[in-house]
Amino acid sequence: MNRRKFFRNGSLFALGSSLLSPFDLKATTLDPDTINRNKKAKNIIVLVSDGMSNGTLNMADLYLSRKTGKGSNWLQLYKDNRVNRALMDMASASSIVTDSAAASSSWGSGFRINNGGLNIGTKGEAYVPIWQKFKKAGKMAGCVTTVPITHATPAGFCVNSKSRNDQEGIAEKYLRLKFDIMMGGGNNYFSSEYRKDKVDMYQKFEAQGYQVVKNRSEMLKATLDKPILGVFNNDGLPYTIDRNNNKELTEKIPTLAEMTQKAIDRMKNHEEGFVLQVEAGKVDWAAHGNDIAGLIYDQTAHDEAVKVAIDFAEKDENTLVIITTDHGNANPGVIYGKKANKQFDSIQEYKHTNEWILNGFGKETSVSQIKQRIEYANNIALTTEEANVLLSYYNSINTEKGLYNPKQLPFHELAQIQKQHNSVGWISMNHSADYVELAMFGPGSDLLKPFIKNTDLHYLMLEAAEVENNF
Amino acid sequence: MNRRKFFRNGSLFALGSSLLSPFDLKATTLDPDTINRNKKAKNIIVLVSDGMSNGTLNMADLYLSRKTGKGSNWLQLYKDNRVNRALMDMASASSIVTDSAAASSSWGSGFRINNGGLNIGTKGEAYVPIWQKFKKAGKMAGCVTTVPITHATPAGFCVNSKSRNDQEGIAEKYLRLKFDIMMGGGNNYFSSEYRKDKVDMYQKFEAQGYQVVKNRSEMLKATLDKPILGVFNNDGLPYTIDRNNNKELTEKIPTLAEMTQKAIDRMKNHEEGFVLQVEAGKVDWAAHGNDIAGLIYDQTAHDEAVKVAIDFAEKDENTLVIITTDHGNANPGVIYGKKANKQFDSIQEYKHTNEWILNGFGKETSVSQIKQRIEYANNIALTTEEANVLLSYYNSINTEKGLYNPKQLPFHELAQIQKQHNSVGWISMNHSADYVELAMFGPGSDLLKPFIKNTDLHYLMLEAAEVENNF
Repeated sequence: MNRRKFFRNGSLFALGSSLLSPFDLKATTLDPDTINRNKKAKNIIVLVSDGMSNGTLNMADLYLSRKTGKGSNWLQLYKDNRVNRALMDMASASSIVTDSAAASSSWGSGFRINNGGLNIGTKGEAYVPIWQKFKKAGKMAGCVTTVPITHATPAGFCVNSKSRNDQEGIAEKYLRLKFDIMMGGGNNYFSSEYRKDKVDMYQKFEAQGYQVVKNRSEMLKATLDKPILGVFNNDGLPYTIDRNNNKELTEKIPTLAEMTQKAIDRMKNHEEGFVLQVEAGKVDWAAHGNDIAGLIYDQTAHDEAVKVAIDFAEKDENTLVIITTDHGNANPGVIYGKKANKQFDSIQEYKHTNEWILNGFGKETSVSQIKQRIEYANNIALTTEEANVLLSYYNSINTEKGLYNPKQLPFHELAQIQKQHNSVGWISMNHSADYVELAMFGPGSDLLKPFIKNTDLHYLMLEAAEVENNF
Repeated sequence: MNRRKFFRNGSLFALGSSLLSPFDLKATTLDPDTINRNKKAKNIIVLVSDGMSNGTLNMADLYLSRKTGKGSNWLQLYKDNRVNRALMDMASASSIVTDSAAASSSWGSGFRINNGGLNIGTKGEAYVPIWQKFKKAGKMAGCVTTVPITHATPAGFCVNSKSRNDQEGIAEKYLRLKFDIMMGGGNNYFSSEYRKDKVDMYQKFEAQGYQVVKNRSEMLKATLDKPILGVFNNDGLPYTIDRNNNKELTEKIPTLAEMTQKAIDRMKNHEEGFVLQVEAGKVDWAAHGNDIAGLIYDQTAHDEAVKVAIDFAEKDENTLVIITTDHGNANPGVIYGKKANKQFDSIQEYKHTNEWILNGFGKETSVSQIKQRIEYANNIALTTEEANVLLSYYNSINTEKGLYNPKQLPFHELAQIQKQHNSVGWISMNHSADYVELAMFGPGSDLLKPFIKNTDLHYLMLEAAEVENNF
């Protein structure tokens, strides 16, 4: 029996609202706190911008404000005073700096575990993941993401696994657990062509009654009366800016907002409600690559998904929307300087990510080809010395394998060159210990205190939905 | 006539609290929102950790938690649900990345101005600084800081000046404006020995009825019935960790908490109330130097001042405490890695700042002396190559001048070496555009929305204190 079961720290608030005059309807319609107090969250939508440092939230909002005159949907909720906010300490059991698996598991299980695992405790305990708890309480449950659907953040709400890397095994677990909609990348872990065991997981999902969709139009056409598995790419989905500047990809790959809308539509009429996790997973990958165009445009794609969730929750009035990240990554920021505004604004003209740029080079590339591609993508004129520095990294790459390991490409060096032109700096190419931003909208949001531990969020979700924690 | 004059965005809250049963005293004593609604702030204390990125707040809290089992006083207020919080956009008129002068002026004047000025608008307008407004409303007003008291952050609440650099002129303006307590560093701008005009400003302050104090014991002994000017060092005060590990400095230099306590004691019995700015100015200087021991220990010194302010405000019940920073700087953070915990904890053993380390070297220093000093200060064993890299910077420094320009010393290189041992990274050696953390405690804190512009804070302070903005 969990001592927090059904305990609501808003007990005083209940007293307060009962004293409001019943004749004053205006008061109850205007004060969001009054609306939310003691109201049960039938549905929960958790939006995670993976690996989003404070500076990433800031830069996406700045980018949007300066380009369109209107900032991000996320921060508009703050400006309109419609959310409760907290800082959240995301440390794992093994480190003050979490990985995405331990981070998602802290929310998923209510326990801190070691980096690398999924809902497996430090002594090997298998904790029941939160989406399974909600399924057992009668709700529908699903996840959508821009990285493989078998990746750490969705998996941390859904399954137990000793290793986040066992993505083939995670795909099998999804099949057995029958989530209602699961969409993202990850063909490598479902297709008989790529799986080590050569099993066709798509066939197995279809045999269980799933619709399997593999491109944007199939997804949009999928009926709402059957579970949906959507897998749109081998690994992660393309970065937003690369997708948007490529007609073929735009037709093939749905946006995170479109997947979010589909997932809501699929589950919204379920009588017992639903729970949905939405992950902008490639914000983290972009931070790992110090890839500013990847970062900002994928953060804005996350922001479009925030709008879809809030638009639904506003009308529905029974939905708790949780918007957060699982850890900082690379702590990027715009750096002081006389040209800071102009240089930051130059990112508006970027056409592609650094991933796109660097994957276009090999050891046979010439200095002038390097200069041309970066001039095309970033409107930056490299010096011959800079181009040669980048080129030098390709001499040690075995291009005959046909696959680059992104970690071997000169992401760091390209970002350092760009920094002189766009004023954006990075502390590293990895996660940080920073406490993270967390915001809540709708019923249950009054449960949030200004500073929480990651594990608190597990219990808050159960409390908000009044689901007993008897597992 | 300012349209915001006396407008309280808590008008609905007023309705809510009037509906609370007058017989239910428990409700009014327990709900901080109820206490604060419509209650006037007689006093305001603004605590600014200058140049504090999100990661700085995080690292100081982590440092304290892991060393003492208890985190920072700042975040304890969040854990206890005793504050309202916001993100604040600190952009200046000239840049998305502000300097400290434009930042303080945005709070000081209610207008965004160009970087470098103090309460002088983009068309040359001289805006009345907020501490002058409060003085004219009958309150006492003062500032304490760890940098020169004539520096940008205190000056931005007090005076108009085309240039923040005119610190001698700012000292003269302070004299004319008769603030009630002003303490920090800055002997260079008060002493006849260092001022260009050879005027003895101390004599002038004494002639105006000031007590002038120049060391810790004089400060502690100063009577509370006369205004106080305290100047404890030529430029900024020593970093906290260097002070604490040096008996002479410990005796000479008061802590920020001690200065804060003295300022409160000096002004707390004034019938019309008081306003006080407290600045941990060397947090910013440490970030400019990528100087981790400077940063963390000065942030914890700021945190002790937070405790002094909150302890007073708790008992007083009429004091609004505002805790914030004016901009990010260098966006430091603890970086992911297997040894992150152990490496971050190694900072607990640091004895001195990088400033102390690097000012101990000259071109005559040997490699083994460099190794010894860094081993002593940081418990880090440098390679000969690393020591030679540091040493190479000293060959171009003219030591005969007797003064180092800190910008010429290898601060960046030392931080990059330390990063391998303490897991802390930095994006640059300058300010960032990040939206900043802002928290409020006490009457008036209910006026805060979750996202504000820097200029909003000016009007919020006037509203909270119900001081008319008729200047």
